[in-house]
Amino acid sequence: MSLELNSLARKKAPWLSADGEYSHAVISSRVRLARNLARVPYPSISNAKQQAEVLDLVTQTIASVKSFDNGGFWRARELDSTDRQILVERHLTSPEFMRDSADLGLFVSAEEKVSVTVNEEDHLRIQALTAGLSLQAACERAQEVDSSLDSGLTFDFDREFGYLTACPTNVGTGLRASVLVHLPALVLTREIESYLNRLNKLGFVARGFYGEGTDVQGNLFQVSNQTTLGQTEMEIVRGLENIVKQLVDQEGEAEKTLAKNARIELEDRVWRAYAIITHARMLNSGEMMNLLSAVRLGVGLKILSPMPLPTLNELLILTQPAHLQKAGGGKQSGEERDVRRAELFRESLNA
Amino acid sequence: MSLELNSLARKKAPWLSADGEYSHAVISSRVRLARNLARVPYPSISNAKQQAEVLDLVTQTIASVKSFDNGGFWRARELDSTDRQILVERHLTSPEFMRDSADLGLFVSAEEKVSVTVNEEDHLRIQALTAGLSLQAACERAQEVDSSLDSGLTFDFDREFGYLTACPTNVGTGLRASVLVHLPALVLTREIESYLNRLNKLGFVARGFYGEGTDVQGNLFQVSNQTTLGQTEMEIVRGLENIVKQLVDQEGEAEKTLAKNARIELEDRVWRAYAIITHARMLNSGEMMNLLSAVRLGVGLKILSPMPLPTLNELLILTQPAHLQKAGGGKQSGEERDVRRAELFRESLNA
Repeated sequence: MSLELNSLARKKAPWLSADGEYSHAVISSRVRLARNLARVPYPSISNAKQQAEVLDLVTQTIASVKSFDNGGFWRARELDSTDRQILVERHLTSPEFMRDSADLGLFVSAEEKVSVTVNEEDHLRIQALTAGLSLQAACERAQEVDSSLDSGLTFDFDREFGYLTACPTNVGTGLRASVLVHLPALVLTREIESYLNRLNKLGFVARGFYGEGTDVQGNLFQVSNQTTLGQTEMEIVRGLENIVKQLVDQEGEAEKTLAKNARIELEDRVWRAYAIITHARMLNSGEMMNLLSAVRLGVGLKILSPMPLPTLNELLILTQPAHLQKAGGGKQSGEERDVRRAELFRESLNA
Repeated sequence: MSLELNSLARKKAPWLSADGEYSHAVISSRVRLARNLARVPYPSISNAKQQAEVLDLVTQTIASVKSFDNGGFWRARELDSTDRQILVERHLTSPEFMRDSADLGLFVSAEEKVSVTVNEEDHLRIQALTAGLSLQAACERAQEVDSSLDSGLTFDFDREFGYLTACPTNVGTGLRASVLVHLPALVLTREIESYLNRLNKLGFVARGFYGEGTDVQGNLFQVSNQTTLGQTEMEIVRGLENIVKQLVDQEGEAEKTLAKNARIELEDRVWRAYAIITHARMLNSGEMMNLLSAVRLGVGLKILSPMPLPTLNELLILTQPAHLQKAGGGKQSGEERDVRRAELFRESLNA
């Protein structure tokens, strides 16, 4: 293991490269598999010794998994809150990693394509992150890691139900697929509510930028499956992929409607966002997400000159609080972060 | 008389040329003399015939006043509301000119340096407008017109009280001197209230961009004397000039305080204003005044690159609703005006 947190915080995450399908609207795809070790109490009820044993077991097994060569390993308890937050901001693990509820560990592959969180809600959470709409690739990558680990660990598996998990919503495949999709026009036309309601009825759910329990920021929705039982992994993944394609099509229609019925208001909104994001001397995180959303919309609709999508995607992460803190070196006040965030945008987007 | 309203609406008013003293903070100086004809009822109680006679008398007399050679004359009743508003927006007459309360007439000299409104509250309102802090020059210019008219008209004058006027606050010299001064830092530091209270105690008053009863917009205050009795014209004018110099000094102190204690917030405010005003596709009048104020402050504090002050001053007038309407030709909706206003700013301020 040789991936350092300091260098990680400066890297460009490959899932932000915008080189997948539907990258104009879909930032990334994610597949996460929940696994538990048989005959070991689940993290919420296990003691410190049992949790440390699980962490040891996974460490030994993962050593022989090729994807994790030259990767990184971090034990939450040994990190300060900024470092933990870096890992959460990079979407490598869930916000649970910030808490001291258990002896949490995180394995990350060298290129951040796969990661394994240990002692979260389940013993293992195997995750694969890919750029654009590419759930099948993400699924295959997560399954590869799953198979490799399966050969060294004994997972809690029931012939009738499938994989057993801490929360019943994960029982079965243990698979949660999710897609981070940008839907600014559906928000502007206020159609988004009815689409989200329809999603729910079809067994999907939309959440915020950092998953369950987090707010939607910058019109970025994390759409995922709600049920993991009664379908194969590929059925779940294809189902979600279809739903997202429909959403992206509807977003395209909404963009056309806006461009037709409210062209000047749309141009005004986009140009103001671009103007502020490239001139402001202080930008807070919430405002930044909204401005970046409008700029992305403006690039898509050719109101603004072309800008590289990877740059826009990467700014989403590089301007998060812990990333700014890390890049700045040393503790920063909220105001200092806002100043640095604004500088980063001027450096990145001004010609 | 040869000044046409259509060409007037496109002209650069000389009082916006920023070539007077204190032009960084003081837009313009204005002196207005109230005069009434002896033995003729005042406009508020006179009938149509009497008002028309006053207008005729003034027209005959003004024909021999050199300052008005090649000037313009407009009778309010013969103008539509856009045309009347043009004259008000250019500060050539008061907002009273919009109303049909009497048979109002307006004489304007060729270069808009002096004007005479007939049948407003008083029979005559003689006004001189100059750039920067130059009340004495404005006063001399107004007095010159006053003397010329005095030789052809008999003004209502009382040995004890001086000139008699419709409103007792104008009795005496009939002189109202006012200065349009930009005080953004005093507004930001919230010191403005206490300074305005002090002004009042000293017999001065601060009003909005278009005088009595209008709102302060863009941190532009019209400071004027309240009393016209018991002092000579020059005493009033010098008193106001001193007060304004003090205000400008205090504004300078407030700017230093801001630059020292809230530099980054100030820079952020200025740069955002500049960004929006040079990129927006729609700008309403109120927002425009505020943005322009921040840009002017930013130029003064060298946060922004130098910009010609006359351009900033002229935009104050050229982007007022009736001026935009006139320049656009034909009736415009509020949205169309906002679009045209934003275009004007992009054309004028973008390098």
